[in-house]
Amino acid sequence: MSGNGRLPPFSRRVPEGDNREREVCDSCGFINYANPKIVVGSVITWQDKVLLCRRAISPRKGYWTIPAGYMEEHETTEHGARREAIEEANADIDIDALLAVYNIPRISQVQIIYRARLARPEFSPGPESLETRLFAWSDIPWADLAFPSVHWALGHFRDVEGLSTFAVRTNPPGDHGDY
Amino acid sequence: MSGNGRLPPFSRRVPEGDNREREVCDSCGFINYANPKIVVGSVITWQDKVLLCRRAISPRKGYWTIPAGYMEEHETTEHGARREAIEEANADIDIDALLAVYNIPRISQVQIIYRARLARPEFSPGPESLETRLFAWSDIPWADLAFPSVHWALGHFRDVEGLSTFAVRTNPPGDHGDY
Repeated sequence: MSGNGRLPPFSRRVPEGDNREREVCDSCGFINYANPKIVVGSVITWQDKVLLCRRAISPRKGYWTIPAGYMEEHETTEHGARREAIEEANADIDIDALLAVYNIPRISQVQIIYRARLARPEFSPGPESLETRLFAWSDIPWADLAFPSVHWALGHFRDVEGLSTFAVRTNPPGDHGDY
Repeated sequence: MSGNGRLPPFSRRVPEGDNREREVCDSCGFINYANPKIVVGSVITWQDKVLLCRRAISPRKGYWTIPAGYMEEHETTEHGARREAIEEANADIDIDALLAVYNIPRISQVQIIYRARLARPEFSPGPESLETRLFAWSDIPWADLAFPSVHWALGHFRDVEGLSTFAVRTNPPGDHGDY
């Protein structure tokens, strides 16, 4: 969401009964609560390879990521992760487990990342991807990953490989995902 | 967030490069993306008792809940859960593990619930609580719990009691938390 274009009658003040400043319309009293945003996605495999997408859009255009994006209203986190795999990689996935919950507080983002498998070995770039490819672990383009959380998710996927029960992973200690 | 009071120049249309309708200002082009909201909270214990709060506010005023509420911008989910325990029960908590991620798609809500302990046996009602109390398991007021997800969280807490490593819990199968 872009901050410019904000309509003139909004000002920042503490609404009655609240304890912090919000954006309030001076003319009608509408309160524009700003909430953290949820990103849903998954580390997706076929046999021993991981599916990555090369981004066709900003930020980090040209860099590799796992299929993930903003959760929409009236869907579940699992549904959102499946939708993103379809939108970014035309990939139909079976979700296996919740892998991680990451916090990026600087940009008010919570990432909910699943472990999943391709339902069949078919995938291709969606409109937001330049390229989609299965990588063997040793071929993952570590220097060309789009975001710190893609590193974390791949590392955590590897940590729990072969485990059916594991504690959900979170940010590496002290790391807030800034880059 | 209340739907009334919406400023007149907003209309619903599909922005360029998007694939679904958004609320767009006809005068300046500002896109008011509507996102799911995150609730953060925790099942908090002291020895073998669970801390519950009786709600002083709508919805479900007078009913019992775990300390939980909307996550704010620029905090982490853990920070938000600790803040809610302070705001609703003046309780200082130590978070132990992520217990559950629940989806309530009808109201576009994702609940991130931790397992926590009181740092010391001190608590009292905050402004949004009528009463705060430690309940032995057999005394929990099951018929007077505020929301389905409070039932789920207490049940899941009991499921994993004594386990340090467990898979994060999710909605009971087929249950979307409507009531």
